[in-house]
Amino acid sequence: ELVSAINNRSGITLKECMRTAGFNPDAIAARQRHLSAERFHGYLELHIEQGPVLEKRDIPVGIVTGIRGSARARNARCIGEYTHSGAVPHEYRKDAVLATTELCYRIDEAWAKIRSEGHDLVFTVGQFTTDAKAHSLTKVPGETGFTIDFRSQDLSILRMMVELTQQLAQEIAAHRHVHFDLGEFNLSSPAMMDDELQRQLADGASKLGIPTISLASGAGHDAQDFAHAGFPSAMIFVRNANGSHNPAEQLAMDDLRLGTRLLTWMLCQ
Amino acid sequence: ELVSAINNRSGITLKECMRTAGFNPDAIAARQRHLSAERFHGYLELHIEQGPVLEKRDIPVGIVTGIRGSARARNARCIGEYTHSGAVPHEYRKDAVLATTELCYRIDEAWAKIRSEGHDLVFTVGQFTTDAKAHSLTKVPGETGFTIDFRSQDLSILRMMVELTQQLAQEIAAHRHVHFDLGEFNLSSPAMMDDELQRQLADGASKLGIPTISLASGAGHDAQDFAHAGFPSAMIFVRNANGSHNPAEQLAMDDLRLGTRLLTWMLCQ
Repeated sequence: ELVSAINNRSGITLKECMRTAGFNPDAIAARQRHLSAERFHGYLELHIEQGPVLEKRDIPVGIVTGIRGSARARNARCIGEYTHSGAVPHEYRKDAVLATTELCYRIDEAWAKIRSEGHDLVFTVGQFTTDAKAHSLTKVPGETGFTIDFRSQDLSILRMMVELTQQLAQEIAAHRHVHFDLGEFNLSSPAMMDDELQRQLADGASKLGIPTISLASGAGHDAQDFAHAGFPSAMIFVRNANGSHNPAEQLAMDDLRLGTRLLTWMLCQ
Repeated sequence: ELVSAINNRSGITLKECMRTAGFNPDAIAARQRHLSAERFHGYLELHIEQGPVLEKRDIPVGIVTGIRGSARARNARCIGEYTHSGAVPHEYRKDAVLATTELCYRIDEAWAKIRSEGHDLVFTVGQFTTDAKAHSLTKVPGETGFTIDFRSQDLSILRMMVELTQQLAQEIAAHRHVHFDLGEFNLSSPAMMDDELQRQLADGASKLGIPTISLASGAGHDAQDFAHAGFPSAMIFVRNANGSHNPAEQLAMDDLRLGTRLLTWMLCQ
């Protein structure tokens, strides 16, 4: 149970911390709701953009259209057979690397097509490894491990990509004589920002003379939990260089001023 | 220097071992030739096939056409940039995995074409890894390490594949905004077996009623050194199951008898 989790440094449970801070962990453990959507106009969040879109487009402030959901395979594997790279002709091979590279290449082709049709989708194979204990320059590779991360604001696109990946894996397994074990895809739903709040933000920016564009958030934010819980939610992004969660992330104070000015204007409405 | 190499277990140098066994290590270190091709009819070698060709084709004995040479990249790398897998659109990515998988996929396409034209070629990417210290499910991969092993009886095909790989790497690097460092390809020349000796072996097998096929050797053998040194050389393969250099390798005594019968017949000519 989450509230029983222990802090690595202090050794104190989350439950104890919450009590000290004046909260009731039992209500949270019982999933009781503390806020009701009826009592709030909505939820507003100001955040640096964790990607490079505003910087590349040279725009200081962004209005978020939605927070991408994801479909992820955390422990996908391809099982083939280790054999001699010189002595075994291709027709007798079960080459896990060539099978996995074909899968990645063909998903990438599908990604290009889906993007060209105007849908929102990013696709990442962040990990791709042969087994350091068994692989060699002179062995046909018998196994790979890899990950897949699809993200989209459109749940149906995520579902379609999972299905396509499973189909491609079957097809490639048949002609390359390997076996794919993709495991379960973890699916998290996209969280769309409220249309009316987005419209008001665009209005405010226009009145204040702040250049903005609309863009999707690829990273997760608190706003997605409020949106999923039924609160009309919106986010303002501020331009930021060099990515985030690293010492090089860089926000210009002038950009932050424009972001907070828009937030303040919105709160005054 | 090779003769100064020390045995891991005994701590004795190769030089000392050779002296004890009655050889002169200094002559070897000076690369003096001990045998001259004029004094020999040729070199004959009997060996298990280390691949599955004879087993799959159900033939007990093979006559080797040549020992494949190789062109190898031992430490190829693709350098891109690590970034957030959700927040960074593909047009701003430098994805090392998608670039490397495209390279593998397109070499594999070229391999299929070259094979369909009847040339001898095998192609293996035995190692393919993202960096375990830096990679993650939710990061665009910034680096890959991989190996390439081409083998062919035809040196010009090996040279062509190296050139093609370098061209493809340049082209892919340009459109995927990454950098490939393939390193030097180590080139080892194929060693062709002597035509006349091959013809005699086929003759003998026919007279003895031993079914044979001709096939390339993908693994290296002593015969290649003799062939490179100018000795007419030939090899007889005997069918063997489950690969080689592992506890499961399996040779039927009846097949070995057929192989040695052919070797004996040849020696009596």
